[in-house]
Amino acid sequence: MTTMQKIEEVRDSKWFSNLTTFIIIAYACILGFKTLDEVETNYNLFLKVADYFVTIYFVFELAIKMVAEKKFANFFKSGWNIFDFVIVVITLLPLESSSFAAIARLMRVFRILRLFTARPELKAIIDMLIKAIPSIIDIVILLFIIFYIYAIIGSFFFVDLPSGLWKDFLISMLTLFRVLTFEDWTDVMYEAMEVYPWAWVYFVSFVIIAAFVFFNLFVAVIIGEMQKLQEEEMKKEIHEDSLKLDILLEEIKSLRTEVQELKEKDK
Amino acid sequence: MTTMQKIEEVRDSKWFSNLTTFIIIAYACILGFKTLDEVETNYNLFLKVADYFVTIYFVFELAIKMVAEKKFANFFKSGWNIFDFVIVVITLLPLESSSFAAIARLMRVFRILRLFTARPELKAIIDMLIKAIPSIIDIVILLFIIFYIYAIIGSFFFVDLPSGLWKDFLISMLTLFRVLTFEDWTDVMYEAMEVYPWAWVYFVSFVIIAAFVFFNLFVAVIIGEMQKLQEEEMKKEIHEDSLKLDILLEEIKSLRTEVQELKEKDK
Amino acid sequence: MTTMQKIEEVRDSKWFSNLTTFIIIAYACILGFKTLDEVETNYNLFLKVADYFVTIYFVFELAIKMVAEKKFANFFKSGWNIFDFVIVVITLLPLESSSFAAIARLMRVFRILRLFTARPELKAIIDMLIKAIPSIIDIVILLFIIFYIYAIIGSFFFVDLPSGLWKDFLISMLTLFRVLTFEDWTDVMYEAMEVYPWAWVYFVSFVIIAAFVFFNLFVAVIIGEMQKLQEEEMKKEIHEDSLKLDILLEEIKSLRTEVQELKEKDK
Amino acid sequence: MTTMQKIEEVRDSKWFSNLTTFIIIAYACILGFKTLDEVETNYNLFLKVADYFVTIYFVFELAIKMVAEKKFANFFKSGWNIFDFVIVVITLLPLESSSFAAIARLMRVFRILRLFTARPELKAIIDMLIKAIPSIIDIVILLFIIFYIYAIIGSFFFVDLPSGLWKDFLISMLTLFRVLTFEDWTDVMYEAMEVYPWAWVYFVSFVIIAAFVFFNLFVAVIIGEMQKLQEEEMKKEIHEDSLKLDILLEEIKSLRTEVQELKEKDK
Repeated sequence: MTTMQKIEEVRDSKWFSNLTTFIIIAYACILGFKTLDEVETNYNLFLKVADYFVTIYFVFELAIKMVAEKKFANFFKSGWNIFDFVIVVITLLPLESSSFAAIARLMRVFRILRLFTARPELKAIIDMLIKAIPSIIDIVILLFIIFYIYAIIGSFFFVDLPSGLWKDFLISMLTLFRVLTFEDWTDVMYEAMEVYPWAWVYFVSFVIIAAFVFFNLFVAVIIGEMQKLQEEEMKKEIHEDSLKLDILLEEIKSLRTEVQELKEKDK
Repeated sequence: MTTMQKIEEVRDSKWFSNLTTFIIIAYACILGFKTLDEVETNYNLFLKVADYFVTIYFVFELAIKMVAEKKFANFFKSGWNIFDFVIVVITLLPLESSSFAAIARLMRVFRILRLFTARPELKAIIDMLIKAIPSIIDIVILLFIIFYIYAIIGSFFFVDLPSGLWKDFLISMLTLFRVLTFEDWTDVMYEAMEVYPWAWVYFVSFVIIAAFVFFNLFVAVIIGEMQKLQEEEMKKEIHEDSLKLDILLEEIKSLRTEVQELKEKDK
Repeated sequence: MTTMQKIEEVRDSKWFSNLTTFIIIAYACILGFKTLDEVETNYNLFLKVADYFVTIYFVFELAIKMVAEKKFANFFKSGWNIFDFVIVVITLLPLESSSFAAIARLMRVFRILRLFTARPELKAIIDMLIKAIPSIIDIVILLFIIFYIYAIIGSFFFVDLPSGLWKDFLISMLTLFRVLTFEDWTDVMYEAMEVYPWAWVYFVSFVIIAAFVFFNLFVAVIIGEMQKLQEEEMKKEIHEDSLKLDILLEEIKSLRTEVQELKEKDK
Repeated sequence: MTTMQKIEEVRDSKWFSNLTTFIIIAYACILGFKTLDEVETNYNLFLKVADYFVTIYFVFELAIKMVAEKKFANFFKSGWNIFDFVIVVITLLPLESSSFAAIARLMRVFRILRLFTARPELKAIIDMLIKAIPSIIDIVILLFIIFYIYAIIGSFFFVDLPSGLWKDFLISMLTLFRVLTFEDWTDVMYEAMEVYPWAWVYFVSFVIIAAFVFFNLFVAVIIGEMQKLQEEEMKKEIHEDSLKLDILLEEIKSLRTEVQELKEKDK
């Protein structure tokens, strides 16, 4: 067994994936506790050590994954590998002592995202979520059109309301998003109704239309998933039955031919 | 190729549809930014130019669609064409300088609705949403009856509450709609409970009944869509199998007849 | 055609059902407007006339339905007929001038419920909703147990909180129902956390458990409806195919018997 | 019939299960009313009697269940029996007069959980809920990662906000859970926007991402349940059809063999 094969074996082994998972979770806990306790004296040193250790481990792990690849260029063909690479490189940048120190420290948090690449199940879910996007993109556009029209109308009529919830187009969009989540939407409505008593038509129609579209988005996704499910699961067996029927038909036809030959000979 | 055919080709071409989409979105952005920045001096001129350009483009596009039609009357047979026509005509009305100037400016917003006719996918979704209405109309009536009864009872008992949430029938309906969205519904309840300690029965029963009906509306729509799906997708292949079985039965029957003829002759 | 047949024809006719629907809706509008305007002088007379007219019409309609029945006792065999009868009788009681006048006036509102018996579609939905109850009864019991335990614990620990939201068992149940609808539930939690800093465990666990059970209730109902759907729609055709296969098998067996007879003779 | 058989018969009888259910519910009502009325003088004696009676009944019932088992060790093989045993033993502990008296009294509430073991339907639902957990565990992990990252970012940027909603990591998690339930989430956002005007990006993105993941969790569970349903319900009959087709094929092949033998002989 060559060194190459050994490295490849290590990369694909369960314990290597589990070790990475464990280190990421342990590091996440340390980061969490730090903010929790704010023990900034002794603790800071411990955090620094953990930080260095994780940085080195990540570089080491990335190196193994790169070396294990037969061709170096193949490594960057997987989106998940690029994702790993970017996260490791960013945390390697010597920003600690620069003016970006605070942001650099924050970047460490994104190391927890490496859990996705360590756990194949999570990778699968993320892939599934990304695949689900195209099937809802048009309903999202539709929702945006509804938001746009209501935001323009809202920022036209309600611009001078004292709460400032409609002071410009962007803030109006935010206010409508709030209304969509039903979050204190009546407060927004009652304020508008004091100036325009019929403002409830605007709000109630928005809630009903947006919720109705949203609701259909929901149904569309469920139906879409179901369609896939049916195609995979059941159609297979029905298709097999269909094939069997075709064979049966062939058999009977050739049987009939033979019987006819028998009749021919009998004459 | 005649001029007529050329016009028809332009109307059905992908780039014409994409150009219209782009112009609508660009115009929507300009309108959005205007409210965002409120730069009313130089900006206003730019907006006016954009406005004139879009108006002319829309008239031009509508003209192409009208001319491309073999018979002029056919144009108005499509609901979407009428929709386009009304939007273009309204924005053509010389209301800018009249007392309706503010409303006229607002009408321009509805031009974004022309995205529906420019993007076939959105047209399909809107058609689907409209088709979904009849299947839920009776549950909407049911919901209305529940609202009606609770509104009458509410405006009878709670009419004198200081918040004025039950001061007349229409406001009571609005308050109930608010309760249905769970928006600060306990505030409404606690106020009523100060006068009638058993008022919680009214609110809790309304929330449970209305939510239960709503919930069944949801299930009904999903089941309805599924029924359609099953009819289209799977029944087809099962039906084909069923047809094959019929052919098989025919084959076997005629085979049997031949065997019986063979037996007859053998005697 | 006897008088009996004529009455029966009237009862089952579309226009009779539509007339009843129209009268109920018109009456509902009048009741709604009354509360809306509170014009109690001239208006009151009009309402009284409408009231008398509807009362007489309802008695008349009920009489037709009773007479049309071959056997009088059959009339009360339908739950919907009893429902109609009770509503009509209650509004006939001479309570107007008594001390129950206010409640008697309120009873008129329930006449709108007669829309259910006038519109067969609504009758079908109500029947469907009632049928859906047994399939969720056990999850409702489960939800009740969760509520019970949390209410007891809540009213034990939080009984002395200044808001009085946990002052007795019943009020605790109401507070938990409020938490389930996510209505200002953090206000309740933050108040409790001031005395017991770990109270968030109580609230977060309740929200997650109750929502999870509720969520499964939802899934259970959808799956239940689907099961019915599949049994009705698709199984039918698959069953037909299955029957055809049985016939086919029979045919082939008898064919084989005949071929064997042919062989026997040939010997 | 031996004593052993009689005890076993009693354990499996419907009336024994119903009696236990009745006693648990009655006891739950007494506990509920106690907190409701707080009549602590005469009432306390009644509660004590009820308490003693229920304790004795539970020990008695547990004894029957233990004796009815052929082998004593088998009793502890069922998780539900262990559950019963623990609840009974805990309430038997003589903690009433000790310093844990208050907690001991509270433990009595958990006796209502014995309803699960008394009603087989509830046992089935609980088993179903437990079975549903593995299918959603990965999405829960995903949700946790999202919470973690947003909590770290939130407690980094918003730590000094006067409301103290982001003062440490744990409280930030709680605040995010609150945002997920849409509970006054705009209050949290508006407070943050006063310091960081672009904070809405943080909140809106969290709401959309978390809701989108949650939503897919929902769809995943429904699809998962459906898959099971299809496997059980429909595949069975389709599978039967498939088997019939196999038999048919066999039949036809042997028929063909016989016809060929007939032809051979005819030569």
